[in-house]
Amino acid sequence: MNKIYNPKPETWSSILERPTKTVDDIEATVKEIFKEVQKKGDLAVAKYTSLFDGASIEKLEVSKAEIEMAIASISSELKEAIQLAKTNIKKFHSAQKTNRVVVETIEGVNCWQEKRPIQKIGLYIPGGTAPLFSTVLMLAVPAKIAGCNEIVLCSPPDKSGNINPAILYAANLCGVTKILKVGGIQAIAAMTFGTETIPKVYKIFGPGNQFVTVAKQLATQFGVAIDMPAGPSELLIVADDTAVPAFVASDLLSQAEHGADSQVILVSTSKKLIDAVETEIQIQMDLLPRKNIAEKAIANSKLIFVENDTIALELINEYGPEHFIICSEFDDFYSNGVHNAGSIFIGNYTPESAGDYASGTNHTLPTNGYAKNYSGVNLDSFTKAMTFQKITKKGIQNIGKAIEIMAEAEGLQAHKNAVTLRLKAIENEK
Amino acid sequence: MNKIYNPKPETWSSILERPTKTVDDIEATVKEIFKEVQKKGDLAVAKYTSLFDGASIEKLEVSKAEIEMAIASISSELKEAIQLAKTNIKKFHSAQKTNRVVVETIEGVNCWQEKRPIQKIGLYIPGGTAPLFSTVLMLAVPAKIAGCNEIVLCSPPDKSGNINPAILYAANLCGVTKILKVGGIQAIAAMTFGTETIPKVYKIFGPGNQFVTVAKQLATQFGVAIDMPAGPSELLIVADDTAVPAFVASDLLSQAEHGADSQVILVSTSKKLIDAVETEIQIQMDLLPRKNIAEKAIANSKLIFVENDTIALELINEYGPEHFIICSEFDDFYSNGVHNAGSIFIGNYTPESAGDYASGTNHTLPTNGYAKNYSGVNLDSFTKAMTFQKITKKGIQNIGKAIEIMAEAEGLQAHKNAVTLRLKAIENEK
Repeated sequence: MNKIYNPKPETWSSILERPTKTVDDIEATVKEIFKEVQKKGDLAVAKYTSLFDGASIEKLEVSKAEIEMAIASISSELKEAIQLAKTNIKKFHSAQKTNRVVVETIEGVNCWQEKRPIQKIGLYIPGGTAPLFSTVLMLAVPAKIAGCNEIVLCSPPDKSGNINPAILYAANLCGVTKILKVGGIQAIAAMTFGTETIPKVYKIFGPGNQFVTVAKQLATQFGVAIDMPAGPSELLIVADDTAVPAFVASDLLSQAEHGADSQVILVSTSKKLIDAVETEIQIQMDLLPRKNIAEKAIANSKLIFVENDTIALELINEYGPEHFIICSEFDDFYSNGVHNAGSIFIGNYTPESAGDYASGTNHTLPTNGYAKNYSGVNLDSFTKAMTFQKITKKGIQNIGKAIEIMAEAEGLQAHKNAVTLRLKAIENEK
Repeated sequence: MNKIYNPKPETWSSILERPTKTVDDIEATVKEIFKEVQKKGDLAVAKYTSLFDGASIEKLEVSKAEIEMAIASISSELKEAIQLAKTNIKKFHSAQKTNRVVVETIEGVNCWQEKRPIQKIGLYIPGGTAPLFSTVLMLAVPAKIAGCNEIVLCSPPDKSGNINPAILYAANLCGVTKILKVGGIQAIAAMTFGTETIPKVYKIFGPGNQFVTVAKQLATQFGVAIDMPAGPSELLIVADDTAVPAFVASDLLSQAEHGADSQVILVSTSKKLIDAVETEIQIQMDLLPRKNIAEKAIANSKLIFVENDTIALELINEYGPEHFIICSEFDDFYSNGVHNAGSIFIGNYTPESAGDYASGTNHTLPTNGYAKNYSGVNLDSFTKAMTFQKITKKGIQNIGKAIEIMAEAEGLQAHKNAVTLRLKAIENEK
């Protein structure tokens, strides 16, 4: 672990630097697979599924029988846990619904804004060692609340051609309309162009490795929107002597076990706390099944001592963490002052895992400093804001002259003319 | 004009096809300029300003004296028009403010969502024949309401090194914090990386030609967000015999004068209306100063007759127009049923120019079919939704077991451990 005392502001950006990605190497591969899927559809998908996942899939779509089997295989304990999480996620995201915003800006000029669902969306759920069924809840529950018509889910099959049953169970529970056994670049390409079996969608959500991330970025060049650009997961904790070192250590480790490239940072005004956390990390780490992964991330982690809370807050806003835990006497100072963070966890009994699974907030959050300019996934991510206006004769008389003058000044005579014609018609009626 | 009767659904996508862009040719140029601006800063900016704009600029930042001069040069008539537009835009966008969303999802688990301003934003305003000061209002007014700290505006200088006074006037009126004489690719690159004079921003807004569009897309690869991908402007009108042919023609022409590549479509259930509009277009077009441009766009326009309103609505949703005017007996049917459109104008006295300038709605809207997955610019475009949570001992006891079970099932032991430690600590207190 790297302990850093009182770093000067001019060194912050290098201390807080994220691991650089080598996107260029991957891009060529991604482009090639996109081209092939666009041209050959399911055939290309099958080829790459065989190549990358080592699975030969006859039917890409998961059948009802497979879903039934998955449901039967899940313990009632896990079912209950998922149900509790789903209930909380539903409550929190339902509360984000907004009413139609209606304003008569001037007499006779009625404007309103409405949010309408994106009709077709795609969810990508990675396979691999950790079957992220929790992400299914985080994406499908708000999609359903928003009213998205078509919810397509892609997840890579294992070598025997199956998707993890917990993923199937969650997808079925949350009303996903179609589940497909396809992963990686080929899944993103298929949802971008559509194939015989896999529907084209308007927006793609969900995490993935760097291949998936680059594929999602490429998808945007073909008219598909994405939830956000992704990078390795990250956590920054600010803690003082009111924090419990063992809890802080456990939170840092829960972030570290995600991957060797996970970002783990502790900022503190207490050297004592920093040392205590360091000791606790060593104790707890030894007991972890994913110790190998966590160890690498912890080796790159930073424990940063700063003189006071004002400096700490500045440094945190400069970093813009995905997850931000506040265990401080001055928690209001931090929660009111933070500009850039995805999700904020306040107090000793608010571990990041709460938000990862069951408190109700979303866990699909901006990493890599994107908390400065992107929202985490929320209900609005599944809708578009549309504006409407209806103007009466009186209304166009009220704003008509201003439009004519402005259009004229911009050199757009036809814009002016559209108003002039109407004003004259009203005049002639008299 | 192309009149099409009863096109079959399988031909819609080819009939409604947008002009293809040749992004590949441009990309290399854009990448090169980005590299140079990143490395050489202001020096590179000056080089390309001289090359592309033919202007030699000593001071990139517009001075107070220049702003004073611009203010003095604007007629009081135009000032009043701008003020009226600004007032309406402010009213409509202020109404979009949302309160903190607070939910106790289960006893002791307090979650809330808050929107906080993006701290640094950049506005791009094109120069050229039409000085789009109206776009300054559309971007700077909501940015100010949202509370963005730093609002940087870039606009290309003319050959004598000046920005159009109406743009300066509007920027100053709306509280833009810094105005810079720089346009094109070099402006987008400068706001992406920052130079000695031009601040790096977190999100870039505004229209531009295809060079600017590609530059904005490239900017996203360097961590900058953008308002939306852009394409040529478009308008679709649905009209029946309750419409006034001269009004419909004037709206189609106001779209057509934007550029030769503008998209202009009329959908109607009345052949009589289609013919009448066709005649009116010819009459009105001859009087336009931008007739040359409008003529080209009109030559590519489509007048589509369909059997009934249900088919019309399907076709409209398939197209997803940026601007959608409804002049129909069944306006509610259309306004309730439209899924995909940027801004909707209802009735004979609601020309698109109203929304372009002064009604209060935003005119920065998704083109190119992006109405299927993107919002037009609105108050939320200048904020990020952040989530917060604070969990009590009782709260973590309520959801702790569910988290433990789910984390275990995903193979993430450290996530489970962060909860187990806390539950044990509470247990031990008893």
